[in-house]
Amino acid sequence: MDRLTIIKVGGKVVEEPESLNALLDQFKKVSGYKILVHGGGRTATEIANKLGIETKMVDGRRITDADMLEVVTMVYGGLVNKKIVAGLQSRNCNAIGLTGADLDLIKAKKRPVKDIDYGFVGDIDDVNTHELRILINENIIPVIAPLTHDGNGNLLNTNADTIASEIATELANSFSVYLFYCFEKRGVLLDAEDDSTVIHDLDTALFSQYKNEGVINAGMIPKLENGFRAKRKGVKEVLITNAENIATGRGTRLV
Amino acid sequence: MDRLTIIKVGGKVVEEPESLNALLDQFKKVSGYKILVHGGGRTATEIANKLGIETKMVDGRRITDADMLEVVTMVYGGLVNKKIVAGLQSRNCNAIGLTGADLDLIKAKKRPVKDIDYGFVGDIDDVNTHELRILINENIIPVIAPLTHDGNGNLLNTNADTIASEIATELANSFSVYLFYCFEKRGVLLDAEDDSTVIHDLDTALFSQYKNEGVINAGMIPKLENGFRAKRKGVKEVLITNAENIATGRGTRLV
Repeated sequence: MDRLTIIKVGGKVVEEPESLNALLDQFKKVSGYKILVHGGGRTATEIANKLGIETKMVDGRRITDADMLEVVTMVYGGLVNKKIVAGLQSRNCNAIGLTGADLDLIKAKKRPVKDIDYGFVGDIDDVNTHELRILINENIIPVIAPLTHDGNGNLLNTNADTIASEIATELANSFSVYLFYCFEKRGVLLDAEDDSTVIHDLDTALFSQYKNEGVINAGMIPKLENGFRAKRKGVKEVLITNAENIATGRGTRLV
Repeated sequence: MDRLTIIKVGGKVVEEPESLNALLDQFKKVSGYKILVHGGGRTATEIANKLGIETKMVDGRRITDADMLEVVTMVYGGLVNKKIVAGLQSRNCNAIGLTGADLDLIKAKKRPVKDIDYGFVGDIDDVNTHELRILINENIIPVIAPLTHDGNGNLLNTNADTIASEIATELANSFSVYLFYCFEKRGVLLDAEDDSTVIHDLDTALFSQYKNEGVINAGMIPKLENGFRAKRKGVKEVLITNAENIATGRGTRLV
């Protein structure tokens, strides 16, 4: 099967011109078919603030009322996505920006209200990769914003890490899928302050141990759980790394 | 050749939920392959205003400085475009939202400064329909926002009427292209206040006469000039109509 690399990039990296350019330079060097999944939370918070819309977060997740949904639709689907697409085109990478509504790529259900009403936040129901595979096979590079739709005309705000792992899993039958979570650090660190303490290979036993010992940062845990699940479901390789190493493949490998 | 209908819809129609829904209901009824090209100027002005960014227009064209470019990128490429896409998906129309940067669809040059500095406004250089034709032949419906790119990583604000006619012209070798300009009125009117005075067939001689006599509204003139040019370049039919008549094909036909 052909190699397909899916790179999820956190907000900060894609939200500043300098780090975005550095990322796209590295992204261009990644060989084989590729997909970029991005965030954009900092910009959403900033624009919301300017519009007088208050940002409320619970455990790092954004409460998305109707006004905030308009903001994330603008920022993720428009501002951040199209800047990345234009940046890739200038590097002769034939990119196309997508949300989960485009091509009916990702259907989701509005999260049921339990203790917290997250508002227009979507939990993924169904990933439809038929048209996505046509694009990939035409050497087109999908750039995916963290938005889904409910099939009734409503967009929903959806976690980018989850989108990346769901798409990776769904494409694992058609491609040899490499899933890279790209963030500020060089990998999962034993000491968050020391970049030289990258854990090179992480298996589930070691993950459990580090989790229990509190060695692994709380914010990293859902990302790793997503990653291990993707690996169990046929994704060939899952790597946690930074923008500088997406082409070298160095970082923390889930094994 | 297969029939392809390209429908350009002005801002107001796509910017209010009720008129947008009515439009999409009619759009669904249009048979054959189709493309929707949209505006979004009123929303851009409104969001800019809320962000404290002043809107300056010259002859109906928006002066697009760096801040305004961010606004139109968000509003046209994100907010308006993705609402239309989600609305079409809910009607089982497999839509995909695009700007001129996506798939390198439309390259433009920043308009040279003469009397007026329009800022980040693009004049179209090149329309690349290779990937667009692949999408259309897969029964995917492109929904195109009025943004282009310069190939150096910059997005540019570009008139939606012009985008519609340039794409129509470029596709006229591959499809039997019907180009519909959809606005508030039922067609070109002899009396702007009287909807029963639709000119059913308009040829260039009659257009010149009405233009000289001041019968045709100034805002309509560039639209009609675009339309006649598209017809000369092989577009099969050009129609000026309103949302209610895009499926019936009634309105003003350029002949």
